[in-house]
Amino acid sequence: MTSPMAPAWQVSRWFNSEPLALADLRGRVVLLHAFQMLCPACAMQALPQMQRVRRAFADERLAVVGLHTVFEHHDAQGPVSLAAFLHEYRYDFPVGVDAHDEGDPLPRTMRTYAMQGTPTLVLIDAEGRLRQQHFGVADDLALGASIGRLLAELPVAADA
Amino acid sequence: MTSPMAPAWQVSRWFNSEPLALADLRGRVVLLHAFQMLCPACAMQALPQMQRVRRAFADERLAVVGLHTVFEHHDAQGPVSLAAFLHEYRYDFPVGVDAHDEGDPLPRTMRTYAMQGTPTLVLIDAEGRLRQQHFGVADDLALGASIGRLLAELPVAADA
Amino acid sequence: MTSPMAPAWQVSRWFNSEPLALADLRGRVVLLHAFQMLCPACAMQALPQMQRVRRAFADERLAVVGLHTVFEHHDAQGPVSLAAFLHEYRYDFPVGVDAHDEGDPLPRTMRTYAMQGTPTLVLIDAEGRLRQQHFGVADDLALGASIGRLLAELPVAADA
Amino acid sequence: MTSPMAPAWQVSRWFNSEPLALADLRGRVVLLHAFQMLCPACAMQALPQMQRVRRAFADERLAVVGLHTVFEHHDAQGPVSLAAFLHEYRYDFPVGVDAHDEGDPLPRTMRTYAMQGTPTLVLIDAEGRLRQQHFGVADDLALGASIGRLLAELPVAADA
Repeated sequence: MTSPMAPAWQVSRWFNSEPLALADLRGRVVLLHAFQMLCPACAMQALPQMQRVRRAFADERLAVVGLHTVFEHHDAQGPVSLAAFLHEYRYDFPVGVDAHDEGDPLPRTMRTYAMQGTPTLVLIDAEGRLRQQHFGVADDLALGASIGRLLAELPVAADA
Repeated sequence: MTSPMAPAWQVSRWFNSEPLALADLRGRVVLLHAFQMLCPACAMQALPQMQRVRRAFADERLAVVGLHTVFEHHDAQGPVSLAAFLHEYRYDFPVGVDAHDEGDPLPRTMRTYAMQGTPTLVLIDAEGRLRQQHFGVADDLALGASIGRLLAELPVAADA
Repeated sequence: MTSPMAPAWQVSRWFNSEPLALADLRGRVVLLHAFQMLCPACAMQALPQMQRVRRAFADERLAVVGLHTVFEHHDAQGPVSLAAFLHEYRYDFPVGVDAHDEGDPLPRTMRTYAMQGTPTLVLIDAEGRLRQQHFGVADDLALGASIGRLLAELPVAADA
Repeated sequence: MTSPMAPAWQVSRWFNSEPLALADLRGRVVLLHAFQMLCPACAMQALPQMQRVRRAFADERLAVVGLHTVFEHHDAQGPVSLAAFLHEYRYDFPVGVDAHDEGDPLPRTMRTYAMQGTPTLVLIDAEGRLRQQHFGVADDLALGASIGRLLAELPVAADA
């Protein structure tokens, strides 16, 4: 079984980070979390889960990256609003704003990945292959297991 | 012990309701809930509690009224944003936008009630007197007891 | 509307208390909590709620009394087992063991109150009248309101 | 890095299973859960977690095995009590009663594994090696990751 390479994301603006390409993260497992700040399941469940993931895997080669995939309520979820949201909730991991083509309500990366809505979790392995994509809130045990499986594939560091 | 009359609220716009004055609610206990849509303790705890209150007291003479007391992030918490927020979270109780005087970041009702921040819960009895004001998230048991005490003061309806 | 007097409870042994009669508690609202230590809804939800009630109403004239109404698994829920249970969970409020008539699996107070199972919550007012009986786990808001209503009936203390 | 073989467990009686030896479970990851039925952290947190684990990994080669390691309140946690407990909570996974040597309050397997108390989680890989031992309640994400890592070591089944 071989998995395809994960497509590059297309981001118009970054929060909490310099511009960040997926290719920059080779060697690390990537948890890409597509959300909208006014999506209740995102704000109430999935984003707090991202914080728990960061804490649980703080010592591991795992990168958590947020992607603000706004496909509705565009006026209420622009960059000014997102900045306030991230500040108030103290979310300090990298968050990219998914880029829009003019006239298209769905942003580009969301289309490229064929996401069905928010929240969507995407797991990408250390070689950049797309290994799992999940629409909805994931169970902590199942998400932990998925991350554990991908971390198990990493070569053991010489000094570990 | 006598409590003062609760000041009128000053609202620039209503959601989920025709314009609603405190005086219109005589005969009912009023739970006024001052919040900001991007305040985490409001969105994660206090607003879900308002829904529980409405369900638990659906058959009682209790009115739950929201008041959007924006004192920070004004650009991110305007009426367009609030409309999207209320729609996404399916909050359908009356919510008034606390009116601003030009040049003052704090809205008027928030000043009148000397609220310290959000969330703030205000309990007003059936005669319009301010009986309790609480800054922060209230405990369900304590809030239930406060509401129960005020409901106990109501005259029993002839047909009850 | 008048409520009947609550029947006396019949207890074979007390934990965390000298022998305690309902009549001793006149002047206080009484929350009587009938449970079995191996009933999951009791152990997981209703008993922790009793602790929350005690904390929320620590300054009020409210007495929380447990009643161990064993009607099944008698060999596994005897006094030795109950003592270990109360010790491990640090439950230090008065708990009476509901008395059994020989040959009857249902204990006496449970029969007298016609309880349907465990957990059952009984609210008794300061004059000893049975005001509410609820089978199952109660909602915190609703339970708080019921307690608040009964506390509102108490005369205000001279020094309060 | 090589891990030692996990010692055999020593069980005086099984619930929900025929006698079950660790060696019988080669080819499967084993999550051994040492608990006492009257230990609050076991009953309130760790045992419900075992149910979540079983549900989350229902399709995986993972065996969840309980071990009743009674080291206190022996009179209240004997087999009759445990049978009632397992029945009431609907726990239907295999549970062994850790065997006692006469005069020793600590049971044998608990001594062999040098467990510090309950709950203790032990993860054993498909070859029978002891890979992790954790005293206290584990985080769902971390436990999921540990299980995922061990499952990742299994050879892929021919028909999978």
